[in-house]
Amino acid sequence: MTQVYRSELTPLAFLERSAMAYPTKTAIVHGEDRFTYAEMAGQARHTASAMRASGVGEGDRVAYLCPNIPEMLVAHFAVPLLGAVLVAINTRLSPEEIRYILDHSGSKLLIGDSELLRPLDSIAGALETVEEIVAIDETGTSVPYTVTSWEQFRSRGSDEESFDWTVDDEERTIAINYTSGTTGRPKGVMYTHRGAYLNSLGEIIHSRHSPDSVYLWTLPMFHCNGWCTTWAVTAIGGTHVCLRKVDPGKIWSLIEEMGVTHLNAAPTVLISLVNHPDAQEFKDGLIVTTAGAPPSPTIIEALERLGARLIHVYGLTETYGPHTVCELQPGVEELDVGERARFLARQGVSFIIADPTRVVDDQMGDVSRDATEMGEVVMRGNNVMKGYFANPKATEEAFTGGYFHSGDVAVWHPDNYIDLRDRSKDIIISGGENISTIEVERTIVSHPAVLECAVVAVPHEKWGERPKAFVVLKEGAGASPEEIIDHVKSNLARYKAPDELDIVDELPKTSTGKVQKYVLREKEWNGHERRIH
Amino acid sequence: MTQVYRSELTPLAFLERSAMAYPTKTAIVHGEDRFTYAEMAGQARHTASAMRASGVGEGDRVAYLCPNIPEMLVAHFAVPLLGAVLVAINTRLSPEEIRYILDHSGSKLLIGDSELLRPLDSIAGALETVEEIVAIDETGTSVPYTVTSWEQFRSRGSDEESFDWTVDDEERTIAINYTSGTTGRPKGVMYTHRGAYLNSLGEIIHSRHSPDSVYLWTLPMFHCNGWCTTWAVTAIGGTHVCLRKVDPGKIWSLIEEMGVTHLNAAPTVLISLVNHPDAQEFKDGLIVTTAGAPPSPTIIEALERLGARLIHVYGLTETYGPHTVCELQPGVEELDVGERARFLARQGVSFIIADPTRVVDDQMGDVSRDATEMGEVVMRGNNVMKGYFANPKATEEAFTGGYFHSGDVAVWHPDNYIDLRDRSKDIIISGGENISTIEVERTIVSHPAVLECAVVAVPHEKWGERPKAFVVLKEGAGASPEEIIDHVKSNLARYKAPDELDIVDELPKTSTGKVQKYVLREKEWNGHERRIH
Repeated sequence: MTQVYRSELTPLAFLERSAMAYPTKTAIVHGEDRFTYAEMAGQARHTASAMRASGVGEGDRVAYLCPNIPEMLVAHFAVPLLGAVLVAINTRLSPEEIRYILDHSGSKLLIGDSELLRPLDSIAGALETVEEIVAIDETGTSVPYTVTSWEQFRSRGSDEESFDWTVDDEERTIAINYTSGTTGRPKGVMYTHRGAYLNSLGEIIHSRHSPDSVYLWTLPMFHCNGWCTTWAVTAIGGTHVCLRKVDPGKIWSLIEEMGVTHLNAAPTVLISLVNHPDAQEFKDGLIVTTAGAPPSPTIIEALERLGARLIHVYGLTETYGPHTVCELQPGVEELDVGERARFLARQGVSFIIADPTRVVDDQMGDVSRDATEMGEVVMRGNNVMKGYFANPKATEEAFTGGYFHSGDVAVWHPDNYIDLRDRSKDIIISGGENISTIEVERTIVSHPAVLECAVVAVPHEKWGERPKAFVVLKEGAGASPEEIIDHVKSNLARYKAPDELDIVDELPKTSTGKVQKYVLREKEWNGHERRIH
Repeated sequence: MTQVYRSELTPLAFLERSAMAYPTKTAIVHGEDRFTYAEMAGQARHTASAMRASGVGEGDRVAYLCPNIPEMLVAHFAVPLLGAVLVAINTRLSPEEIRYILDHSGSKLLIGDSELLRPLDSIAGALETVEEIVAIDETGTSVPYTVTSWEQFRSRGSDEESFDWTVDDEERTIAINYTSGTTGRPKGVMYTHRGAYLNSLGEIIHSRHSPDSVYLWTLPMFHCNGWCTTWAVTAIGGTHVCLRKVDPGKIWSLIEEMGVTHLNAAPTVLISLVNHPDAQEFKDGLIVTTAGAPPSPTIIEALERLGARLIHVYGLTETYGPHTVCELQPGVEELDVGERARFLARQGVSFIIADPTRVVDDQMGDVSRDATEMGEVVMRGNNVMKGYFANPKATEEAFTGGYFHSGDVAVWHPDNYIDLRDRSKDIIISGGENISTIEVERTIVSHPAVLECAVVAVPHEKWGERPKAFVVLKEGAGASPEEIIDHVKSNLARYKAPDELDIVDELPKTSTGKVQKYVLREKEWNGHERRIH
């Protein structure tokens, strides 16, 4: 590993470089605060130093529960600088879900925003491995249990402590991102330094970042480490504009004030953006990279009218976020907006740093590239996860046949572009967030009046998809749909609860007794070309 | 190697991807010819297939002696597709130098342009390892010895033969590029698949390539594989515009006709370009990446006036071409052209994919970052060569202290930018090409009248630097400067011969008898801030 011609790939090198190349350039904007790249590197060293003094060592997991604030960004370098592993937790989860992730990941330290720590009083005392909770308090929210203040924590370390911005093996885990899978319980998707490094370069290239990039953090950093953009924008030496909450008015004022050049967002965010009264032309253009649902003609037209360029990407937590991109072909830009939207709705081709994405049949054979035969989207290569943390069985299953199985169903066009049609896994993507139907079903049947149920995705104008439940009650039992929905809300993150719940006499089943979800979906998606949205 | 989450890095994947993503897009323009990406991939398969049928196997070296024609570009994929190693030879070398490279590399096959093969009649029969010479004839030049025609050669293969666009180990050698080093004999710089892959991504990012790139081949492809741009422009799915000869009039007409967006060139080429009568504004802008000498204020001003953006990079054959880039700092674009030129003349900071470049003293300690203390520029990391082919001694020497020693002397600025001042190695860079002073000296002293000599670089308006010789004749012997220069020209590539040759009584020497070249240089460079140009 000390060869002259080989360095282990690691995103740590990106901050080291930008601190050398752009020591006085603004790396982070947050409200009135400004931090240069030299300061950002100093903060990473300081936080790593404080973690080390707090007993965090190589391979330990450090959990963060934060909105898009500078500390969350810096954690993407501070944690791996120690050789530790970052677990950035979805801030919308319920206390019970957060407890599961903290325990399952074996996190030693939890650093959270006080506003987000506050609701955890029911679990804070019952954590299996967390030894200390540190609260970052920028809102003045009190936390009703014992925590270490950020100042106390920081005072244990120093930005003078020296660290190597290197890793001894590029296949070490840099982060674990928990995602709702089909089994109901969230699974910990492991990213390697190598994968994160390469995918970051892919993000730079496909989202056309340059050192002039001013990137607005509309996408949560806990979401696939912000699709690796935490590392990518740092690598290119752009400016990160932090955003505590997605608020269209605030976004418009930051675009104007900071000269934002890039943002990543699910179509739902884009809809609220273009429909806001402050909407105005992007003076210097804006590159919008979107995923989670195909952008509609309305969105495309509205964004283009304002001077934005839309890039449609597709991927999963298991692929470090975006894995394919709908590259434009010569002539596409001249099509009318309807045709262009049809083209842009396709998931396209693999990232420059990814292996070819395939659409396969049950025997792992390629389906015909005829835009008709459906198959499962499978991926492999450097931006596919290392596996699920502490879950070899699920890893093995996901990697059947030497490829990662996305669970998404697509056709393959004659020009090699893939085009999603349905999901074979029972995952609903609502506003860019995964919802496991199985997890929701399990919660519904835990209600004493419920016999069995099925949850499917239904199309939704704003969120793309939302869960809908079909419930069979126990004989003689009684419960209203609202009661059952409330039961879900008190046990899971609220966004996972179905908006609609039909009490039915029976569920459609196969002869072997399996619920035929497609029958339920078919009815709900009548009139839609795709069975995803 | 069959892990789901790891693929060996190789530029082969770039052409595989572009053939999937852009099957019908124009990959190559050459005169009236147009080839799509599907065709380019087919040509690579076809050429690899013909090579296999001709007995070339894994690890074999295949030499190319070609101008910037499509076959030379395709070779960058065809040769590694077989697992073989590309040796792209500098077309300006003398037959004797070419013979040395062919023998030293142990090349099995030589594929050459008939115009360039023609002068090799003196060596063609005496090659140690070359089993077959294949002539690509697009000029109708006859070759005065037995060669295989390109058509004959191609007829052995087929584009139907299937190949994996993969490599089993990313640290395998993909290419060997011979460079004139201080020892006089050219050394074979080995590139790995991993290094070529990563440096290509670096080229895309720093030269801001996009799928809209139309790249004009002014830089020779034999030069560090065109600074890896052979692979990089293919990766991004841009269009390669081939160019047989650097002819400013032709360049201007191609810029106009093809909508060229990017080119790489030494300042000498840029001078001839901006001074040409056809010079006109670049309608869609032009990104010019330059290296080999710091761009002068005149060049910068002229290019900017025409609408070009200049990117100054620095590197060596041993670093896959460019290794550092003079990133712009906020505010630099507002400076006046003189100040901007002073800034842009600096070599800057490491590429995004490179390790930090250092300037060190004799003990490998960092020099002060005070813009005054001089030291040697040293590099390490993924875009440093694997070593010199079949020359472990030279490799070990070059890698002393765990870094590659560039032989270039620089100061380090407080903002971490490096700034070249002199060369410790006896290399002259003339029009972007290396000339070994030791090689020239050896040739001069082979003249019967010469006792001893010293060759140093002198500044030159057009070529940056040119060699100048100081010669002491043997007692009683007589020879004119012209005679000795002619002697050099008949033994080496003509561009290596000194323009000036002074017959002197003695050379300045140290007490131990070493020639003090700096004394000779000092006089010639009087009035210049740097000792390189």
